[in-house]
Amino acid sequence: MPGLTLAEIATLLNVPSPAEPTRPVTGVNTLADATPTDLSFLSSDKYVAEFESSRAAAVFVQKRVKLPPGHRKIVFLVDDADLAVAKVLEKFAPPIPRPPVGRHHTAIVAPGASIGEGSRIGGNVVIGDDTRIGRNCVFHAGVIIGSDVTIGDDCEFFPNVVVRERITIGSRVIIHAGAVLGTDGFGYRWDGKQHAKIPHIGTIVVEDDVEIGSCVCIDRAKFSATRVGRGSKIDNLVQVAHGVTIGRNVLLAAQVGIAGSTTIEDSVTLAGQVGVSGHITIGKGTIATAQTGIPNSVEAGSFISGYPAISNRDWLKSSAVFRKLPELRKAIADLEARLAELETRLK
Amino acid sequence: MPGLTLAEIATLLNVPSPAEPTRPVTGVNTLADATPTDLSFLSSDKYVAEFESSRAAAVFVQKRVKLPPGHRKIVFLVDDADLAVAKVLEKFAPPIPRPPVGRHHTAIVAPGASIGEGSRIGGNVVIGDDTRIGRNCVFHAGVIIGSDVTIGDDCEFFPNVVVRERITIGSRVIIHAGAVLGTDGFGYRWDGKQHAKIPHIGTIVVEDDVEIGSCVCIDRAKFSATRVGRGSKIDNLVQVAHGVTIGRNVLLAAQVGIAGSTTIEDSVTLAGQVGVSGHITIGKGTIATAQTGIPNSVEAGSFISGYPAISNRDWLKSSAVFRKLPELRKAIADLEARLAELETRLK
Amino acid sequence: MPGLTLAEIATLLNVPSPAEPTRPVTGVNTLADATPTDLSFLSSDKYVAEFESSRAAAVFVQKRVKLPPGHRKIVFLVDDADLAVAKVLEKFAPPIPRPPVGRHHTAIVAPGASIGEGSRIGGNVVIGDDTRIGRNCVFHAGVIIGSDVTIGDDCEFFPNVVVRERITIGSRVIIHAGAVLGTDGFGYRWDGKQHAKIPHIGTIVVEDDVEIGSCVCIDRAKFSATRVGRGSKIDNLVQVAHGVTIGRNVLLAAQVGIAGSTTIEDSVTLAGQVGVSGHITIGKGTIATAQTGIPNSVEAGSFISGYPAISNRDWLKSSAVFRKLPELRKAIADLEARLAELETRLK
Repeated sequence: MPGLTLAEIATLLNVPSPAEPTRPVTGVNTLADATPTDLSFLSSDKYVAEFESSRAAAVFVQKRVKLPPGHRKIVFLVDDADLAVAKVLEKFAPPIPRPPVGRHHTAIVAPGASIGEGSRIGGNVVIGDDTRIGRNCVFHAGVIIGSDVTIGDDCEFFPNVVVRERITIGSRVIIHAGAVLGTDGFGYRWDGKQHAKIPHIGTIVVEDDVEIGSCVCIDRAKFSATRVGRGSKIDNLVQVAHGVTIGRNVLLAAQVGIAGSTTIEDSVTLAGQVGVSGHITIGKGTIATAQTGIPNSVEAGSFISGYPAISNRDWLKSSAVFRKLPELRKAIADLEARLAELETRLK
Repeated sequence: MPGLTLAEIATLLNVPSPAEPTRPVTGVNTLADATPTDLSFLSSDKYVAEFESSRAAAVFVQKRVKLPPGHRKIVFLVDDADLAVAKVLEKFAPPIPRPPVGRHHTAIVAPGASIGEGSRIGGNVVIGDDTRIGRNCVFHAGVIIGSDVTIGDDCEFFPNVVVRERITIGSRVIIHAGAVLGTDGFGYRWDGKQHAKIPHIGTIVVEDDVEIGSCVCIDRAKFSATRVGRGSKIDNLVQVAHGVTIGRNVLLAAQVGIAGSTTIEDSVTLAGQVGVSGHITIGKGTIATAQTGIPNSVEAGSFISGYPAISNRDWLKSSAVFRKLPELRKAIADLEARLAELETRLK
Repeated sequence: MPGLTLAEIATLLNVPSPAEPTRPVTGVNTLADATPTDLSFLSSDKYVAEFESSRAAAVFVQKRVKLPPGHRKIVFLVDDADLAVAKVLEKFAPPIPRPPVGRHHTAIVAPGASIGEGSRIGGNVVIGDDTRIGRNCVFHAGVIIGSDVTIGDDCEFFPNVVVRERITIGSRVIIHAGAVLGTDGFGYRWDGKQHAKIPHIGTIVVEDDVEIGSCVCIDRAKFSATRVGRGSKIDNLVQVAHGVTIGRNVLLAAQVGIAGSTTIEDSVTLAGQVGVSGHITIGKGTIATAQTGIPNSVEAGSFISGYPAISNRDWLKSSAVFRKLPELRKAIADLEARLAELETRLK
C-alpha cells in the first residue's frame, strides 16, 4: 500500500502538523492491533486504556474524549474520528485491479451492442444485442448482460453479475459479484390444476449512484418497473421482489427481504434480515432494527422493531416483560388464591 | 411490445366488444400510472377514486365492484380481473432473447454428453460427460452442468446456473440465474478433534414443471435424494437442505430455509423468510406467514405464524397482548397493592 | 457406485462378520426406503417397527437399542450408528468429477500467476496476476480468482466461485458454487448530501480446513482482515460482514447473518437464520437455536434463543406463556372485577 507521512496526514485533515512529521504510516488499525506504522483512532472514553497501550504511530482522537494526562502518544484532535479514518483510507486504498480499456478477446459482444469510450470489458463477459453501455464502465470477468439493456457512465460490475434483458441502469452504479437483476417476479395463478405462471413483462430501473451487494436478487415487475432510487445502497443477499419501489438514499442491510409492490420511501434504513410484506408503504426516514417483520404500512419517521413491528420503545419494554412472563403467570395465580381466600372469609 | 385493439382484447376474454373497438393498447399498468395506451384493472371498491381519474384506455372491472354512476370509462366486466390481466400480459409479453438452436462456439460440451433436437446452448456453457439433455431446452450463457446429469425436455436455465453431477431434472423446469443445485449437505461429525465431513453420495430429483428462483441453493442428500415435486415453485434465495422432500404444487417464497430431512407435503405455502427445522413434516396445504419459525411437525391444513409457530389466530391475539405487557405488569402490581391493603385491614 | 460385501463392511467397522458374508451391498438408505442391496441403520427404539419391515440387506444397530426377540435381520451391533454410516458412505462415495491436471485451454491465467503441481484448472476459469496457488488444488469451471491472492494446497473451489483480489486462503479449503469472497463491506458515511462510500482496503484470511457453502458472501474488512478460523464450516447463503472474526471449529448454518466487526469465538454453533449484531462477541461454545436474534455480547457456553436472545430455558418457558397471553389478560380483568367488588363491600 502507498504510504504517507504524519505531516501529509495533517494536511489532509487540515489540522496542525504533529511531532515527528516525517514519520511514515502505511495503514489503519484498531488501537489493540495497530503496528508502529499504522494510524489508529479513539472516538469514545471506553477505549482510553487501549489508547495508552497502543503501538500506533499516531491516533485520531475525537475532541470530546478525555485523554490521560501526561500521555506520550502522537495525536490528531479531530471533530469526527470516523471521518478522519475514511479520508486516510481513501489515500491508502490500493487500486482495484481492472481489465484494460477495450474488450478481452474472450468477451462475447453482440454486433448490435454499443460500448462507450474508456470502458473495460473483461474475460468471458457476455453482452446482448441492442445493449447500450456508457463511458468508462468496468465489467469484470464473467459478467453477463442481456439484450436491450441501457447502462450509464462510470459503472462497475464485479465478476459473474447477471443483468437480464430490457433493464435500465444509471451512472456510477456499482454491482457486486453474483448479483442478479431481472428475474421474473414470483407470481402464479392457481388455474384449478396448477400454479400457472403469470408473465412478467415489466422492467427494472436503477438510478444513479446506487450500490448493490453480492448475490442480491432484484426481480422485474409484472408490468411497469421495479425501481431503486438514486443513491440507495443494498447489502449482500437482499431480495427485492417484483414491482417494489425503493426511494432515494435508502439503506438495506444484508438479507433484507421486500415483497412485491411495496414502496420504501426516501432515506429509510432497514437493518439485517428485516422482512417487509407486499403492497405496503414504509414512510420516509423509517428505521427498522434487525429481524423486524413489517406486515403493514408504516408512517414516516418511525423507529420500529419486533414481529409484527411496533415502535422500538414499546418493543424494548414488552421484550423486557416477555422474559418475566413465567413470574407474571405465577403472580396472577398467587393473587387468585389470596383473593379467593378473602372472598371465602367474607362470604 | 406488440399491440392489440380493444376488440381483440374482448375476443381474448370472451366478453362483448366495447366502445372504440379499434383503439390500440400496448401495455398494462395500475390505474394511477396507466397512460392512454395502457389497460388497467379494478378489483376492489377501494380504488374507485383512482378509476375515475385514470387515463387508461380501458379497465378490467371485477363484476362485484360498484362503479360510479355516469362514469365515461371503457370497461370490460370480468369475473376475475387478475386472470384477465394475466391473459393480456401473455399477449403483450416480448419474447425472451435466447441463444439460437445449436451450440455457441464457446460452449464446452463433453464428448459423452447428448443434447436433444431443438436445444439452445449459449456462450460459455459447460456440460459434463454422460449428461443427457432433452429437446428444446435453453441454456443461457454461463450455465454449468456437471457429469451424469439427466434433464428432460423444454427446460430453461438462465445465466450462471450451476447443476452439479448426478442429478435428475424433469421437463419444463425453469431455473433462474445463479441458482445452485447439488452442493454437499451441511453434515459433519465431531471426531474428537475436528468436524469431520460426512460424504454426501445422494442426489437431487426435480420433477416436471418446477420453477426455481435466483441464488436458490438445493443440496444433495447424504444418501437417496433431495426431492422437489411436480409443479412446485421456489422463489429467490431459498435454502433447501440435504434430504428434504418437497411435495407437489408447493410455494416457497423468498429467503425461506428448510433444514435437512424435512418433508413439505403437497400444496404447502411458506411465506418469505420462514424457517423450518430438520426431520419434521409440514402437513398438506399448510400456510405459514412470513418469518414463521417452525420447530415441530405441523398437521395438514394448518395456518401458522410466530416463533415458535402457533396457530395464526392465537398468534395474532397473543401479539396484540404482547404490546400491552408493560400495562399488564403494572395492573398486576396494582392488584397486589390493593389486595395487600385489604388483607391488612382484615387481619 | 462401488459395492462391498457384508464381510468387508464388518472389517471396515471392526465387528464380527455377519451371516451371509458374501452378500453385496451398494448403498445406504432409511429403513423404510432401503432395497435388498442397501444397508440401513437403527439408532433409536422409536424406529423398531420400521426395522422389522425393512428390506435392507443389513442394519447398523446402536448397541443400546432393544431389538425385537426372534427378529431375522442381519445386524451389525455398533457403538455409534451414525459413525458407521459415515464410514460406509466414504466407501460408497462415487468420485467427484474433476477437470484433469493442468489448465483447460479456455482458462485465462495471468502471466504472473503461479500454480502448484497437480492442480486442476477447469474451463473458463480466470486467475489474476501475482496470485499464488498451491499444489493439488481443483478449480471447477467458471471460478474467478482476483489478483494477488494466496491459496494453499489441496483446495477445491466449485463452479462460479468468486474470490476477489488480495485475499489469503489456507489449505484443504472447500468453497461451494457461487460463493463470493472479498466484496467491499457495507460502510457509508452521510456527508450531508449522500451516503459516501468508505473505502474497504482490508482483506480476508481463511484458515486451513474451512468449508464455505454456496452463495455465501464474506466481505473484506475496512482495514485489517475479516477472518475465518481453522476448521470452521459455513452453510449456504450465510452473510459474514466486514471485519468479522470467526474462531476455530465454528458451525454457521444456512442463512445466518453476522454484522460487521463481531467476534464469533471457537466452537460456536449458530443454527439457521440466526442474526448477530455488529461489534459484539459471542463467547466460546455458545449455541443459538434457529432464528435467534443476538443484539449484545454473549458469555462463553451460552445456550440461547429468541429475539432479543435470552437463555433457551427462559425462552421456552416464556414462549409457553406467550400462547396464553389472552387468557392471562382475562384473568387479570377478572381479578380486578372481583377485587373491586370486595373493596366496595368493605367501604
